[in-house]
Parts: sequence; structure tokens; C-alpha cells
Amino acid sequence: MIKEIFQHRSIRKYKPDTIAPNILNDILEAAVRASNTGNMQLYSIIVSTSSEVKEKLSPAHFNQPMIKSAPVVLTFCADVNRVSKWCSERNADAGFYNVQTIVGAFIDASIAAQNACLEAEAHGLGICYLGTTTYNARQIIEALNLPKGVVPVTTITIGYPAEEQPLTSRLPLSAVVHAETYHNYSSTDIDAAYAEMEHNIDNQKFIVENNKQNLAQVFSEVRYSRSNNEFFSKEFIDALLQQGIL
Amino acid sequence: MIKEIFQHRSIRKYKPDTIAPNILNDILEAAVRASNTGNMQLYSIIVSTSSEVKEKLSPAHFNQPMIKSAPVVLTFCADVNRVSKWCSERNADAGFYNVQTIVGAFIDASIAAQNACLEAEAHGLGICYLGTTTYNARQIIEALNLPKGVVPVTTITIGYPAEEQPLTSRLPLSAVVHAETYHNYSSTDIDAAYAEMEHNIDNQKFIVENNKQNLAQVFSEVRYSRSNNEFFSKEFIDALLQQGIL
Repeated sequence: MIKEIFQHRSIRKYKPDTIAPNILNDILEAAVRASNTGNMQLYSIIVSTSSEVKEKLSPAHFNQPMIKSAPVVLTFCADVNRVSKWCSERNADAGFYNVQTIVGAFIDASIAAQNACLEAEAHGLGICYLGTTTYNARQIIEALNLPKGVVPVTTITIGYPAEEQPLTSRLPLSAVVHAETYHNYSSTDIDAAYAEMEHNIDNQKFIVENNKQNLAQVFSEVRYSRSNNEFFSKEFIDALLQQGIL
Repeated sequence: MIKEIFQHRSIRKYKPDTIAPNILNDILEAAVRASNTGNMQLYSIIVSTSSEVKEKLSPAHFNQPMIKSAPVVLTFCADVNRVSKWCSERNADAGFYNVQTIVGAFIDASIAAQNACLEAEAHGLGICYLGTTTYNARQIIEALNLPKGVVPVTTITIGYPAEEQPLTSRLPLSAVVHAETYHNYSSTDIDAAYAEMEHNIDNQKFIVENNKQNLAQVFSEVRYSRSNNEFFSKEFIDALLQQGIL
């Protein structure tokens, strides 16, 4: 068993200590060892450590403090620019600016990021994924000078932990795993899947704090509301258009 | 350093041995330990082991032999159905059938898959990702009875290795890593990035076999042609429409 997988917690508070170059190199080498689409490595990794760049990235991530407090910020991008430039230099007809290729590139970038996270944790570092990366993609494109063909996928902040965190609970395995084919959820299945999460004391506090009737309303009406999801969907489509993908 | 990361090879030939239930359980537990969007776990994992289901999945993966020869096939799906059903059961207004949420779900599913792969390798198993999952998504949707809100992202075949494989080469780290912000590639940068790959003897054989002038043409005109990429982009958009996402 890989202990880093089973001991993973998101760490959002970091010591000011920097990350030694050889350790950062291991983390990046781990990222590129991941499987990828036809060995084209349809991603780029932006390593941001300067205050200047982090200052520009911060608002794109809703000023979550990890961007400025982490010594290293890695932005994993889907990248069809590099392979297209290679083909263009070699008189090869490349057609990579499309949905199918960018979806493959998104998967490449994500699994490379996960390797980087686990390797960082093996070195005693803490990491946090920032899902905001696809929310304000156009701000990140501007902050990191991403050319056409390059779309930000996910960001991880890395640093030595300055906090301890308990293991986060998960839905029971039976709620996310399906035998042979998908078995759609009955009302009883849903009750069983979410029972533990709904009875969690911390989660019950969120219901009261947000003046809602139940936890599902906290998730769907407060944290990830329809209007926000639809607004950021449009934003992301605009980013794909701007980068020449759609 | 996590040795499974640095020793990873894709394994496409498997012994007939089945995978013990406790090992499969570890692999699935590893998957769900991954970071995910707001702890909503926007994915489902379909565990297919029966000949009947594998027979149906096989053509969707262009009859690559791994589907039928691997004892276990895991299909990782982006899933906004389960969380939406939960909300619907709890009188919560859920708006998860959109691009932004499905992109988050794609990332969730991908990094969960990578945890599963590494944990499988820690148990001496071999794995192979099948990028064909998004090519023929509608066939997979049918084979696995995926309801609206569920989109296949990636497939991994798992089994005890019946082959040895060398480590696959990668572009130099300097070709995929950017300091602070993205530095676009000059002609010289492209030459440096692809030099080793272009000089590789196996790759030179592919050029001759495919009657092309260079390796870039093999990638862009044979393996991942514009017409195929555009065809499968349209197919994937149709799958997203069918599943109610677009």
C-alpha cells in the first residue's frame, strides 16, 4: 500500500521554508512519469515562486491565501500548442485544436498533477488542489502568459505543513463503485450513500450557519450554486474560445 | 521517492490470474482517497470483470486486446447524477448539469484513476490507460448503462504482468516546465525539446513503416490525424449532449 495515498490531507497553511531545488525536481520528474496520451505529453507545468506572479494569480483564485503563502505554486495546463508548433516546424499537418484532443490533454495534466502531489507528500510536503483554476481561466491565462492552445486545468500549492488536519471522510465505497455496469440510485441508495456525511457534526454546523434545511442545500445552493456554476461554465467556454480550442 | 511512480510502465499483456477481492478493495479505496471537488466525489467507478460486459466494451476500445485479457477493467466516469439525485431527494435546487461542473468531475475522475493505478502497481499488478474511452463515449455509455449526468473519462485495465517493458522516454523536463510564466517555444526550443525523441531508433522505424518524412508527421498524420480528432470531437460533443451536460 502506498502510504502517501492513504494519509493524504489537503494542507492550506505552510511554513515559510522554501523547497530545495532537488526536491522540486523530483516532484516534476514524478509528474512527467505519468501515463499520457500517445506519449505526446499534452501538458505544460508552470512553476511560480515569485511574489510578482503570485500577486497576479491570487485574485484568479479568489484570493485564497495558499497562493501567496505557499513557496511553490504549480499550474498544470492542457497544452496542444507545443506539439502543434513541433508539427508546424516539421511540415506536418497537425489538427490538435479541438475538443477531443483538449479532453485528452486535461486527463494528461490531471494525472501528472496527482503524481506530483504524491511525490511532494513523500518528501514531507503538504499540498492543496485549487479547483478555482477552471473558474477564472482567463485571468490565469493572462497572469501566466498562456498562448493559444494552452488552457489551465488545475493548480497545486506546495509547502511544508504548518497545520495538522484529520483525514476527510468519504462516501462509502459502495456508493461510488458499480459492479459490471452502472446501477442507478434509488431513494434508499441515496439515503445510504449520504447517511454518514449527513450525520457528521461539522456538516450539521454548516446547515445552521447557512440557514438551510439540510446538507444537500448547503452544497447546491451555497457552495456550488446553479447560478455560479452556469456563470463559470460560460466563462470557461469563453476561455476555450479565446485559446482557439472551440 | 515513490518507487511506483518512477517504475511505471504501461502493461498490455496479463496473466490469467484473477485479482483477490482485498487487493481490488485497496485499489478502489486508494482511488477515493484522492482530492476531489469540494468533497462531492463527482465520479463513479465501474468495475467490469464479466466476459459479457467486456465483450460489449471491447469494440468501443477498438478491440484492443487488454479489455478481454485483463481480469479487471475499471471505467472512471465523471458523475453529476448521484449528487443531483441527492439534492433532488432533499428539496435542494441543484445545477450541476453544465460545463464547469463536468470539467471538475473530469479532473476528479482522472486523479482518482491515477491513485488506483499506483496502488495496483504497489501490489505487483500492471495497468494500462485506454484513451479510447472518450473517443467512443456513446458506445461505452450504452455498454455500461450510464444514465444522464454520467460521462466516461478514462479506463484502466489491470492484471498481473505477462510482459516486461522498458521505461518509456519523456521530453526533457525543460521542455514541459516553465519558470514563473509560460515561455513560448522558438524554433530552437522545439528542436531541443524533440531531439532525443526524433533520434530514437524505434521512432525512426515508425517513420519508414508509415512512409513519412519525420516523426511529427507520424504523430499528426497517422496516429492522431486531424480528421480523426475532428470526427471524435464531434462524437464526444454528441455524448455530452446525450448525457444532458450541454
